[in-house]
Amino acid sequence: MTNEELTCKIFEHDGFVKLSGAKVVALDENRAIVRADIEEKHRNANGCVQGGMLYTVADFAFALLSNYLHPVTVTQSGHISYIRAAYTSFITATATETVRAGHNTVSEVIVRDENEQIVCVCNFNGFVKDADREELKKRYE
Amino acid sequence: MTNEELTCKIFEHDGFVKLSGAKVVALDENRAIVRADIEEKHRNANGCVQGGMLYTVADFAFALLSNYLHPVTVTQSGHISYIRAAYTSFITATATETVRAGHNTVSEVIVRDENEQIVCVCNFNGFVKDADREELKKRYE
Amino acid sequence: MTNEELTCKIFEHDGFVKLSGAKVVALDENRAIVRADIEEKHRNANGCVQGGMLYTVADFAFALLSNYLHPVTVTQSGHISYIRAAYTSFITATATETVRAGHNTVSEVIVRDENEQIVCVCNFNGFVKDADREELKKRYE
Amino acid sequence: MTNEELTCKIFEHDGFVKLSGAKVVALDENRAIVRADIEEKHRNANGCVQGGMLYTVADFAFALLSNYLHPVTVTQSGHISYIRAAYTSFITATATETVRAGHNTVSEVIVRDENEQIVCVCNFNGFVKDADREELKKRYE
Repeated sequence: MTNEELTCKIFEHDGFVKLSGAKVVALDENRAIVRADIEEKHRNANGCVQGGMLYTVADFAFALLSNYLHPVTVTQSGHISYIRAAYTSFITATATETVRAGHNTVSEVIVRDENEQIVCVCNFNGFVKDADREELKKRYE
Repeated sequence: MTNEELTCKIFEHDGFVKLSGAKVVALDENRAIVRADIEEKHRNANGCVQGGMLYTVADFAFALLSNYLHPVTVTQSGHISYIRAAYTSFITATATETVRAGHNTVSEVIVRDENEQIVCVCNFNGFVKDADREELKKRYE
Repeated sequence: MTNEELTCKIFEHDGFVKLSGAKVVALDENRAIVRADIEEKHRNANGCVQGGMLYTVADFAFALLSNYLHPVTVTQSGHISYIRAAYTSFITATATETVRAGHNTVSEVIVRDENEQIVCVCNFNGFVKDADREELKKRYE
Repeated sequence: MTNEELTCKIFEHDGFVKLSGAKVVALDENRAIVRADIEEKHRNANGCVQGGMLYTVADFAFALLSNYLHPVTVTQSGHISYIRAAYTSFITATATETVRAGHNTVSEVIVRDENEQIVCVCNFNGFVKDADREELKKRYE
Protein backbone atom coordinates (compact mmCIF):
# COMPACT_ATOMS: atom_id res chain seq x y z
CA MET A 1 0.00 0.00 0.00
CA THR A 2 1.46 3.41 -0.95
CA ASN A 3 1.37 6.37 1.41
CA GLU A 4 -1.18 8.02 -0.82
CA GLU A 5 -3.42 4.95 -0.74
CA LEU A 6 -3.16 4.81 3.03
CA THR A 7 -4.20 8.44 3.37
CA CYS A 8 -7.20 7.98 1.12
CA LYS A 9 -8.24 4.87 3.03
CA ILE A 10 -8.18 6.79 6.34
CA PHE A 11 -10.87 9.12 4.99
CA GLU A 12 -12.78 6.51 2.97
CA HIS A 13 -15.59 6.24 5.49
CA ASP A 14 -15.93 9.93 6.36
CA GLY A 15 -19.65 10.49 6.00
CA PHE A 16 -19.59 14.26 5.74
CA VAL A 17 -16.83 14.32 3.14
CA LYS A 18 -19.04 11.99 1.11
CA LEU A 19 -21.95 14.44 1.40
CA SER A 20 -19.69 17.21 0.14
CA GLY A 21 -18.77 15.15 -2.91
CA ALA A 22 -15.09 16.08 -2.57
CA LYS A 23 -12.68 13.79 -4.45
CA VAL A 24 -8.87 13.63 -4.30
CA VAL A 25 -7.26 15.08 -7.42
CA ALA A 26 -3.61 15.19 -6.36
CA LEU A 27 -1.66 14.29 -3.23
CA ASP A 28 2.11 14.47 -2.85
CA GLU A 29 4.86 16.08 -0.77
CA ASN A 30 3.98 19.52 -2.07
CA ARG A 31 0.23 19.77 -1.91
CA ALA A 32 -3.18 18.15 -1.75
CA ILE A 33 -5.83 19.13 -4.27
CA VAL A 34 -9.47 18.09 -3.97
CA ARG A 35 -12.40 18.88 -6.22
CA ALA A 36 -16.13 18.90 -5.53
CA ASP A 37 -18.84 19.12 -8.14
CA ILE A 38 -21.55 21.44 -6.88
CA GLU A 39 -25.09 20.13 -6.66
CA GLU A 40 -28.21 21.91 -5.40
CA LYS A 41 -27.68 20.48 -1.92
CA HIS A 42 -24.32 22.30 -1.70
CA ARG A 43 -25.80 25.74 -2.38
CA ASN A 44 -27.30 28.29 -0.02
CA ALA A 45 -30.63 30.01 -0.53
CA ASN A 46 -29.00 32.51 -2.91
CA GLY A 47 -27.72 29.78 -5.17
CA CYS A 48 -24.02 30.10 -4.41
CA VAL A 49 -21.80 27.53 -2.69
CA GLN A 50 -22.71 27.44 0.99
CA GLY A 51 -20.17 28.58 3.60
CA GLY A 52 -20.10 25.31 5.53
CA MET A 53 -19.61 23.41 2.28
CA LEU A 54 -16.60 25.59 1.44
CA TYR A 55 -15.14 25.00 4.89
CA THR A 56 -15.76 21.25 4.69
CA VAL A 57 -13.94 20.85 1.39
CA ALA A 58 -11.02 23.03 2.56
CA ASP A 59 -10.73 21.08 5.81
CA PHE A 60 -10.63 17.83 3.84
CA ALA A 61 -7.74 19.11 1.70
CA PHE A 62 -5.85 20.04 4.88
CA ALA A 63 -6.60 16.70 6.53
CA LEU A 64 -5.40 14.78 3.47
CA LEU A 65 -2.15 16.68 3.18
CA SER A 66 -1.18 16.61 6.83
CA ASN A 67 -2.09 12.95 7.30
CA TYR A 68 -0.12 12.14 4.17
CA LEU A 69 2.95 14.06 5.35
CA HIS A 70 2.84 12.93 8.98
CA PRO A 71 0.10 10.59 10.15
CA VAL A 72 -1.93 11.04 12.32
CA THR A 73 -2.74 14.77 12.43
CA VAL A 74 -5.86 16.11 14.13
CA THR A 75 -7.24 19.57 13.37
CA GLN A 76 -6.92 21.95 16.33
CA SER A 77 -8.35 25.07 14.75
CA GLY A 78 -9.42 26.44 11.40
CA HIS A 79 -9.94 29.95 10.02
CA ILE A 80 -11.80 30.83 6.85
CA SER A 81 -12.02 34.20 5.06
CA TYR A 82 -14.74 34.48 2.46
CA ILE A 83 -13.56 36.47 -0.58
CA ARG A 84 -16.38 36.30 -3.12
CA ALA A 85 -19.68 34.51 -3.69
CA ALA A 86 -19.20 31.36 -5.79
CA TYR A 87 -21.78 30.70 -8.50
CA THR A 88 -19.91 27.80 -10.01
CA SER A 89 -20.33 24.20 -11.14
CA PHE A 90 -17.31 22.95 -9.16
CA ILE A 91 -14.70 24.08 -6.67
CA THR A 92 -11.13 23.01 -6.00
CA ALA A 93 -9.22 23.28 -2.73
CA THR A 94 -5.43 23.30 -2.70
CA ALA A 95 -3.61 22.74 0.59
CA THR A 96 0.06 23.58 1.15
CA GLU A 97 1.95 23.24 4.41
CA THR A 98 3.50 26.46 5.65
CA VAL A 99 5.48 24.94 8.50
CA ARG A 100 5.71 21.92 10.72
CA ALA A 101 7.69 22.06 13.94
CA GLY A 102 7.45 19.61 16.82
CA HIS A 103 3.84 18.51 17.17
CA ASN A 104 2.46 21.56 15.34
CA THR A 105 1.61 22.02 11.70
CA VAL A 106 0.15 25.04 9.93
CA SER A 107 -1.27 24.88 6.41
CA GLU A 108 -2.97 27.23 4.01
CA VAL A 109 -5.86 26.10 1.84
CA ILE A 110 -7.12 28.12 -1.11
CA VAL A 111 -10.52 27.38 -2.63
CA ARG A 112 -11.16 28.41 -6.23
CA ASP A 113 -14.21 28.38 -8.52
CA GLU A 114 -14.49 27.04 -12.08
CA ASN A 115 -12.79 30.22 -13.38
CA GLU A 116 -9.80 29.80 -11.06
CA GLN A 117 -10.99 32.79 -9.01
CA ILE A 118 -10.25 32.57 -5.30
CA VAL A 119 -13.44 32.01 -3.30
CA CYS A 120 -11.98 31.70 0.19
CA VAL A 121 -8.67 31.46 2.01
CA CYS A 122 -8.28 29.09 4.96
CA ASN A 123 -5.64 28.40 7.56
CA PHE A 124 -5.52 25.29 9.70
CA ASN A 125 -3.53 24.36 12.79
CA GLY A 126 -3.01 20.67 13.44
CA PHE A 127 -1.53 18.53 16.18
CA VAL A 128 0.76 15.80 14.84
CA LYS A 129 0.55 12.53 16.76
CA ASP A 130 3.41 10.85 14.89
CA ALA A 131 1.75 7.44 14.52
CA ASP A 132 3.66 4.50 13.05
CA ARG A 133 2.84 4.55 9.35
CA GLU A 134 3.59 0.87 8.80
CA GLU A 135 1.24 -0.14 11.60
CA LEU A 136 -1.45 2.07 10.12
CA LYS A 137 -1.01 0.33 6.78
CA LYS A 138 -1.56 -3.04 8.43
CA ARG A 139 -4.70 -1.78 10.14
CA TYR A 140 -6.16 -0.46 6.88
CA GLU A 141 -5.22 -3.45 4.69
CA MET B 1 -44.75 37.88 9.51
CA THR B 2 -42.68 38.14 12.68
CA ASN B 3 -38.95 38.89 12.57
CA GLU B 4 -38.25 35.33 13.65
CA GLU B 5 -40.39 33.95 10.84
CA LEU B 6 -38.61 36.15 8.32
CA THR B 7 -35.19 34.96 9.46
CA CYS B 8 -36.19 31.32 9.23
CA LYS B 9 -37.64 31.88 5.76
CA ILE B 10 -34.35 33.39 4.55
CA PHE B 11 -32.60 30.10 5.31
CA GLU B 12 -35.47 27.80 4.34
CA HIS B 13 -33.89 26.81 1.03
CA ASP B 14 -30.30 26.47 2.21
CA GLY B 15 -29.30 23.07 0.84
CA PHE B 16 -26.30 22.46 3.03
CA VAL B 17 -28.09 23.41 6.24
CA LYS B 18 -30.69 20.81 5.27
CA LEU B 19 -27.95 18.18 4.85
CA SER B 20 -26.69 19.03 8.35
CA GLY B 21 -30.16 18.48 9.79
CA ALA B 22 -29.87 21.63 11.93
CA LYS B 23 -33.17 22.99 13.26
CA VAL B 24 -33.93 26.27 15.02
CA VAL B 25 -34.60 25.78 18.74
CA ALA B 26 -34.63 29.40 19.92
CA LEU B 27 -34.13 32.79 18.32
CA ASP B 28 -34.47 36.13 20.08
CA GLU B 29 -32.55 39.30 20.92
CA ASN B 30 -30.18 37.41 23.17
CA ARG B 31 -29.19 34.30 21.27
CA ALA B 32 -29.87 31.77 18.55
CA ILE B 33 -29.85 28.07 19.43
CA VAL B 34 -29.93 25.33 16.83
CA ARG B 35 -29.87 21.58 17.25
CA ALA B 36 -28.83 18.81 14.90
CA ASP B 37 -29.48 15.11 15.40
CA ILE B 38 -26.39 13.19 14.37
CA GLU B 39 -26.74 10.51 11.73
CA GLU B 40 -24.04 8.30 10.21
CA LYS B 41 -23.55 10.76 7.38
CA HIS B 42 -22.52 13.46 9.89
CA ARG B 43 -19.72 11.39 11.41
CA ASN B 44 -16.09 11.02 10.36
CA ALA B 45 -14.31 7.71 9.92
CA ASN B 46 -13.70 7.49 13.69
CA GLY B 47 -17.41 7.76 14.44
CA CYS B 48 -17.42 11.21 15.97
CA VAL B 49 -19.09 14.33 14.60
CA GLN B 50 -17.11 15.51 11.58
CA GLY B 51 -15.28 18.87 11.71
CA GLY B 52 -17.04 20.40 8.72
CA MET B 53 -20.40 19.36 10.17
CA LEU B 54 -19.55 21.15 13.44
CA TYR B 55 -18.53 24.27 11.53
CA THR B 56 -21.67 24.17 9.37
CA VAL B 57 -24.03 24.01 12.35
CA ALA B 58 -22.13 26.77 14.18
CA ASP B 59 -22.16 28.99 11.10
CA PHE B 60 -25.91 28.50 10.78
CA ALA B 61 -26.46 29.62 14.38
CA PHE B 62 -24.39 32.74 13.68
CA ALA B 63 -26.21 33.45 10.42
CA LEU B 64 -29.60 33.11 12.11
CA LEU B 65 -28.75 35.43 14.97
CA SER B 66 -27.12 38.17 12.95
CA ASN B 67 -29.79 38.15 10.25
CA TYR B 68 -32.43 38.28 12.96
CA LEU B 69 -30.78 41.21 14.74
CA HIS B 70 -29.83 43.19 11.63
CA PRO B 71 -30.70 41.81 8.19
CA VAL B 72 -28.85 41.19 5.91
CA THR B 73 -25.51 40.06 7.38
CA VAL B 74 -22.95 38.14 5.33
CA THR B 75 -20.19 36.12 6.95
CA GLN B 76 -16.74 37.59 6.35
CA SER B 77 -14.67 35.14 8.34
CA GLY B 78 -15.03 32.29 10.79
CA HIS B 79 -12.71 30.65 13.29
CA ILE B 80 -13.26 27.29 14.97
CA SER B 81 -11.31 25.71 17.83
CA TYR B 82 -11.90 22.00 18.38
CA ILE B 83 -11.99 21.12 22.06
CA ARG B 84 -12.93 17.46 22.26
CA ALA B 85 -14.14 14.64 20.03
CA ALA B 86 -17.95 14.37 20.04
CA TYR B 87 -19.42 10.87 20.24
CA THR B 88 -22.96 12.05 20.70
CA SER B 89 -26.48 11.60 19.35
CA PHE B 90 -27.07 15.34 18.89
CA ILE B 91 -25.31 18.69 19.13
CA THR B 92 -26.52 22.19 19.93
CA ALA B 93 -24.96 25.47 18.84
CA THR B 94 -25.61 28.67 20.76
CA ALA B 95 -24.74 32.01 19.16
CA THR B 96 -24.40 35.25 21.11
CA GLU B 97 -23.37 38.61 19.68
CA THR B 98 -20.31 40.11 21.33
CA VAL B 99 -20.49 43.48 19.62
CA ARG B 100 -21.96 45.25 16.63
CA ALA B 101 -20.54 48.60 15.53
CA GLY B 102 -21.08 50.23 12.16
CA HIS B 103 -21.16 47.55 9.50
CA ASN B 104 -19.28 45.01 11.64
CA THR B 105 -20.61 42.33 13.92
CA VAL B 106 -18.71 39.75 15.96
CA SER B 107 -20.39 36.74 17.54
CA GLU B 108 -19.33 33.72 19.52
CA VAL B 109 -20.88 30.30 18.93
CA ILE B 110 -20.47 27.42 21.35
CA VAL B 111 -21.25 23.88 20.25
CA ARG B 112 -22.12 21.28 22.90
CA ASP B 113 -22.74 17.54 22.89
CA GLU B 114 -25.64 15.63 24.46
CA ASN B 115 -23.96 15.91 27.88
CA GLU B 116 -23.65 19.70 27.62
CA GLN B 117 -19.88 19.36 27.20
CA ILE B 118 -18.31 21.97 24.94
CA VAL B 119 -17.16 20.43 21.66
CA CYS B 120 -15.91 23.52 19.86
CA VAL B 121 -15.78 27.29 20.18
CA CYS B 122 -16.32 29.50 17.13
CA ASN B 123 -16.05 33.18 16.36
CA PHE B 124 -17.58 34.83 13.34
CA ASN B 125 -17.15 38.24 11.77
CA GLY B 126 -20.01 39.53 9.65
CA PHE B 127 -20.67 42.51 7.43
CA VAL B 128 -24.06 44.12 8.08
CA LYS B 129 -25.78 45.40 4.95
CA ASP B 130 -28.68 47.03 6.80
CA ALA B 131 -31.41 45.92 4.43
CA ASP B 132 -34.97 47.17 4.85
CA ARG B 133 -36.68 44.53 6.99
CA GLU B 134 -40.19 45.38 5.82
CA GLU B 135 -39.19 45.02 2.18
CA LEU B 136 -37.60 41.69 2.94
CA LYS B 137 -40.83 40.54 4.55
CA LYS B 138 -42.72 41.41 1.38
CA ARG B 139 -40.24 39.49 -0.74
CA TYR B 140 -40.53 36.38 1.42
CA GLU B 141 -44.32 36.43 1.83
CA MET C 1 2.78 33.69 48.31
CA THR C 2 -0.81 33.75 46.98
CA ASN C 3 -1.69 32.38 43.55
CA GLU C 4 -2.30 35.93 42.36
CA GLU C 5 1.12 37.05 43.57
CA LEU C 6 2.76 34.10 41.84
CA THR C 7 1.07 34.93 38.53
CA CYS C 8 2.13 38.56 38.70
CA LYS C 9 5.71 37.54 39.52
CA ILE C 10 5.84 35.30 36.44
CA PHE C 11 5.24 38.35 34.24
CA GLU C 12 7.22 40.83 36.31
CA HIS C 13 10.19 40.87 33.96
CA ASP C 14 8.27 40.84 30.67
CA GLY C 15 9.93 43.66 28.76
CA PHE C 16 7.22 44.21 26.18
CA VAL C 17 4.40 44.25 28.72
CA LYS C 18 6.36 46.99 30.49
CA LEU C 19 6.55 48.98 27.24
CA SER C 20 2.79 48.67 26.89
CA GLY C 21 2.27 50.08 30.38
CA ALA C 22 -0.35 47.42 31.16
CA LYS C 23 -1.08 46.93 34.88
CA VAL C 24 -3.13 44.26 36.62
CA VAL C 25 -6.45 45.60 37.91
CA ALA C 26 -8.16 42.36 38.91
CA LEU C 27 -7.31 38.68 38.82
CA ASP C 28 -9.47 35.87 40.17
CA GLU C 29 -11.25 32.66 39.16
CA ASN C 30 -13.64 34.57 36.93
CA ARG C 31 -11.52 37.01 34.97
CA ALA C 32 -8.35 39.00 34.57
CA ILE C 33 -8.60 42.74 33.95
CA VAL C 34 -5.63 44.87 32.94
CA ARG C 35 -5.43 48.58 32.22
CA ALA C 36 -2.97 50.58 30.18
CA ASP C 37 -2.69 54.35 30.15
CA ILE C 38 -2.11 55.49 26.59
CA GLU C 39 0.95 57.60 25.87
CA GLU C 40 2.14 58.97 22.53
CA LYS C 41 4.33 55.93 22.01
CA HIS C 42 1.25 53.69 22.07
CA ARG C 43 -0.52 55.54 19.24
CA ASN C 44 -0.30 55.07 15.49
CA ALA C 45 0.26 57.88 13.01
CA ASN C 46 -3.46 58.77 13.14
CA GLY C 47 -3.37 59.29 16.89
CA CYS C 48 -5.39 56.26 17.91
CA VAL C 49 -4.22 53.24 19.88
CA GLN C 50 -1.97 51.15 17.62
CA GLY C 51 -3.05 47.65 16.58
CA GLY C 52 -0.02 45.86 17.99
CA MET C 53 -0.49 47.70 21.29
CA LEU C 54 -4.10 46.51 21.48
CA TYR C 55 -3.02 42.93 20.78
CA THR C 56 -0.21 43.10 23.35
CA VAL C 57 -2.49 44.26 26.15
CA ALA C 58 -5.14 41.66 25.26
CA ASP C 59 -2.54 38.88 25.13
CA PHE C 60 -1.29 39.92 28.56
CA ALA C 61 -4.79 39.66 30.03
CA PHE C 62 -5.12 36.15 28.56
CA ALA C 63 -1.68 35.11 29.82
CA LEU C 64 -2.46 36.35 33.32
CA LEU C 65 -5.78 34.56 33.54
CA SER C 66 -4.67 31.23 32.13
CA ASN C 67 -1.45 31.13 34.16
CA TYR C 68 -3.47 31.99 37.25
CA LEU C 69 -6.04 29.26 36.61
CA HIS C 70 -3.59 26.55 35.50
CA PRO C 71 0.13 27.32 35.39
CA VAL C 72 1.99 27.14 33.04
CA THR C 73 -0.01 28.00 29.89
CA VAL C 74 1.67 29.01 26.65
CA THR C 75 -0.19 30.84 23.90
CA GLN C 76 -0.66 28.72 20.77
CA SER C 77 -2.63 31.16 18.67
CA GLY C 78 -4.43 34.47 18.91
CA HIS C 79 -7.11 36.18 16.85
CA ILE C 80 -8.04 39.86 17.00
CA SER C 81 -10.98 41.66 15.38
CA TYR C 82 -10.75 45.43 15.30
CA ILE C 83 -14.13 47.06 15.92
CA ARG C 84 -13.48 50.79 16.12
CA ALA C 85 -10.60 53.26 16.26
CA ALA C 86 -9.70 54.14 19.85
CA TYR C 87 -8.97 57.80 20.59
CA THR C 88 -8.76 57.33 24.32
CA SER C 89 -6.60 58.05 27.33
CA PHE C 90 -6.64 54.46 28.57
CA ILE C 91 -7.82 50.98 27.62
CA THR C 92 -8.89 47.97 29.65
CA ALA C 93 -8.72 44.34 28.62
CA THR C 94 -10.95 41.75 30.28
CA ALA C 95 -10.16 38.05 29.81
CA THR C 96 -12.64 35.27 30.53
CA GLU C 97 -12.06 31.58 29.95
CA THR C 98 -14.61 29.95 27.65
CA VAL C 99 -13.46 26.38 28.17
CA ARG C 100 -10.56 24.30 29.35
CA ALA C 101 -10.37 20.61 28.48
CA GLY C 102 -7.29 18.43 28.64
CA HIS C 103 -4.28 20.50 27.66
CA ASN C 104 -6.34 23.07 25.76
CA THR C 105 -7.79 26.35 26.93
CA VAL C 106 -9.77 28.94 24.97
CA SER C 107 -10.39 32.45 26.28
CA GLU C 108 -12.05 35.60 25.03
CA VAL C 109 -10.57 39.02 25.70
CA ILE C 110 -12.51 42.23 25.19
CA VAL C 111 -10.69 45.56 25.00
CA ARG C 112 -12.60 48.74 25.83
CA ASP C 113 -11.84 52.44 25.66
CA GLU C 114 -12.36 55.10 28.36
CA ASN C 115 -16.07 55.23 27.48
CA GLU C 116 -16.51 51.48 27.91
CA GLN C 117 -16.92 51.10 24.15
CA ILE C 118 -15.55 47.87 22.71
CA VAL C 119 -12.42 48.50 20.66
CA CYS C 120 -11.50 44.94 19.73
CA VAL C 121 -12.45 41.34 20.44
CA CYS C 122 -9.76 38.68 20.82
CA ASN C 123 -9.68 34.93 21.16
CA PHE C 124 -6.72 32.96 22.39
CA ASN C 125 -5.86 29.26 22.36
CA GLY C 126 -3.38 28.07 24.94
CA PHE C 127 -1.58 24.85 25.75
CA VAL C 128 -1.69 23.99 29.46
CA LYS C 129 1.51 22.39 30.77
CA ASP C 130 0.13 21.65 34.24
CA ALA C 131 3.22 22.69 36.18
CA ASP C 132 3.44 22.16 39.93
CA ARG C 133 2.21 25.43 41.44
CA GLU C 134 4.00 24.95 44.76
CA GLU C 135 7.33 24.38 43.00
CA LEU C 136 6.76 27.49 40.93
CA LYS C 137 6.17 29.46 44.11
CA LYS C 138 9.51 28.29 45.50
CA ARG C 139 11.27 29.29 42.30
CA TYR C 140 9.77 32.78 42.36
CA GLU C 141 10.27 33.43 46.07
CA MET D 1 7.70 60.91 -4.23
CA THR D 2 7.73 57.21 -5.13
CA ASN D 3 4.98 54.85 -3.97
CA GLU D 4 7.46 53.24 -1.62
CA GLU D 5 8.40 56.58 -0.09
CA LEU D 6 4.73 57.44 0.38
CA THR D 7 4.06 54.18 2.18
CA CYS D 8 7.00 54.65 4.53
CA LYS D 9 5.92 58.21 5.27
CA ILE D 10 2.41 57.03 6.24
CA PHE D 11 3.95 54.95 9.04
CA GLU D 12 6.76 57.37 9.95
CA HIS D 13 5.03 58.60 13.08
CA ASP D 14 3.68 55.29 14.32
CA GLY D 15 4.79 55.28 17.94
CA PHE D 16 4.42 51.58 18.61
CA VAL D 17 6.25 50.52 15.45
CA LYS D 18 9.11 52.72 16.70
CA LEU D 19 9.09 50.90 20.05
CA SER D 20 9.33 47.60 18.19
CA GLY D 21 12.38 48.81 16.30
CA ALA D 22 11.04 47.38 13.02
CA LYS D 23 12.65 48.80 9.87
CA VAL D 24 11.67 48.36 6.22
CA VAL D 25 14.06 46.06 4.37
CA ALA D 26 12.17 45.59 1.09
CA LEU D 27 8.87 46.77 -0.34
CA ASP D 28 7.59 46.07 -3.82
CA GLU D 29 4.70 44.48 -5.72
CA ASN D 30 5.60 41.03 -4.46
CA ARG D 31 6.27 41.43 -0.76
CA ALA D 32 7.17 43.61 2.19
CA ILE D 33 10.04 42.58 4.45
CA VAL D 34 10.76 44.24 7.77
CA ARG D 35 13.47 43.50 10.31
CA ALA D 36 13.66 44.23 14.01
CA ASP D 37 16.76 43.92 16.16
CA ILE D 38 15.78 42.39 19.47
CA GLU D 39 16.61 44.29 22.65
CA GLU D 40 15.84 43.34 26.24
CA LYS D 41 12.62 45.34 26.13
CA HIS D 42 11.32 43.08 23.32
CA ARG D 43 11.77 39.87 25.31
CA ASN D 44 9.43 38.14 27.73
CA ALA D 45 10.41 36.91 31.18
CA ASN D 46 11.90 33.74 29.66
CA GLY D 47 14.23 35.71 27.42
CA CYS D 48 12.58 34.96 24.09
CA VAL D 49 10.83 37.40 21.79
CA GLN D 50 7.53 38.40 23.34
CA GLY D 51 4.23 37.42 21.67
CA GLY D 52 2.91 40.96 21.31
CA MET D 53 6.24 42.05 19.81
CA LEU D 54 5.98 39.27 17.21
CA TYR D 55 2.44 40.31 16.36
CA THR D 56 3.38 43.99 16.14
CA VAL D 57 6.20 43.40 13.67
CA ALA D 58 4.04 41.05 11.56
CA ASP D 59 1.17 43.55 11.52
CA PHE D 60 3.57 46.27 10.36
CA ALA D 61 4.74 44.12 7.44
CA PHE D 62 1.11 43.57 6.43
CA ALA D 63 0.25 47.26 6.79
CA LEU D 64 3.22 48.28 4.65
CA LEU D 65 2.43 45.85 1.87
CA SER D 66 -1.28 46.50 1.65
CA ASN D 67 -0.92 50.28 1.86
CA TYR D 68 1.76 50.11 -0.82
CA LEU D 69 -0.39 47.98 -3.12
CA HIS D 70 -3.67 49.83 -2.54
CA PRO D 71 -3.78 52.78 -0.17
CA VAL D 72 -5.46 53.12 2.30
CA THR D 73 -5.99 49.69 3.85
CA VAL D 74 -7.11 49.26 7.45
CA THR D 75 -6.64 45.99 9.35
CA GLN D 76 -9.93 44.25 10.11
CA SER D 77 -8.59 41.16 11.80
CA GLY D 78 -5.37 39.32 12.45
CA HIS D 79 -4.50 35.75 13.39
CA ILE D 80 -1.17 34.54 14.74
CA SER D 81 0.04 30.96 15.28
CA TYR D 82 3.12 30.59 17.44
CA ILE D 83 5.43 27.86 16.14
CA ARG D 84 8.55 27.98 18.30
CA ALA D 85 10.17 30.14 20.98
CA ALA D 86 12.58 32.67 19.46
CA TYR D 87 15.89 33.17 21.26
CA THR D 88 17.37 35.35 18.58
CA SER D 89 19.14 38.66 18.02
CA PHE D 90 16.76 39.77 15.27
CA ILE D 91 13.57 38.76 13.49
CA THR D 92 12.28 39.34 9.98
CA ALA D 93 8.66 39.43 8.84
CA THR D 94 7.74 38.80 5.21
CA ALA D 95 4.26 39.72 4.00
CA THR D 96 2.74 38.42 0.77
CA GLU D 97 -0.77 39.11 -0.48
CA THR D 98 -2.84 35.99 -1.06
CA VAL D 99 -5.78 37.71 -2.71
CA ARG D 100 -7.45 41.06 -3.12
CA ALA D 101 -11.04 41.26 -4.36
CA GLY D 102 -13.33 44.25 -4.05
CA HIS D 103 -12.66 45.97 -0.75
CA ASN D 104 -11.09 42.88 0.83
CA THR D 105 -7.48 41.84 1.03
CA VAL D 106 -5.94 38.79 2.70
CA SER D 107 -2.22 38.47 3.34
CA GLU D 108 0.09 35.98 4.99
CA VAL D 109 3.05 37.10 7.10
CA ILE D 110 5.83 34.75 8.13
CA VAL D 111 8.19 35.72 10.94
CA ARG D 112 11.63 34.10 11.07
CA ASP D 113 14.52 34.16 13.54
CA GLU D 114 18.23 34.77 12.83
CA ASN D 115 18.57 31.16 11.60
CA GLU D 116 15.71 31.54 9.11
CA GLN D 117 13.55 29.27 11.25
CA ILE D 118 9.84 30.12 11.23
CA VAL D 119 8.74 31.59 14.56
CA CYS D 120 5.12 32.37 13.78
CA VAL D 121 2.64 32.43 10.92
CA CYS D 122 0.11 35.25 10.64
CA ASN D 123 -2.88 36.01 8.48
CA PHE D 124 -4.45 39.43 8.14
CA ASN D 125 -7.73 40.64 6.65
CA GLY D 126 -7.85 44.25 5.53
CA PHE D 127 -10.48 46.63 4.21
CA VAL D 128 -9.27 48.60 1.18
CA LYS D 129 -10.53 52.20 1.11
CA ASP D 130 -9.12 52.97 -2.35
CA ALA D 131 -7.83 56.44 -1.53
CA ASP D 132 -6.38 58.66 -4.25
CA ARG D 133 -2.66 57.98 -4.19
CA GLU D 134 -1.70 61.30 -5.76
CA GLU D 135 -3.68 63.24 -3.17
CA LEU D 136 -2.01 61.25 -0.43
CA LYS D 137 1.38 62.15 -1.86
CA LYS D 138 0.49 65.84 -1.70
CA ARG D 139 -0.62 65.49 1.90
CA TYR D 140 2.63 63.79 2.95
CA GLU D 141 5.00 66.05 1.00
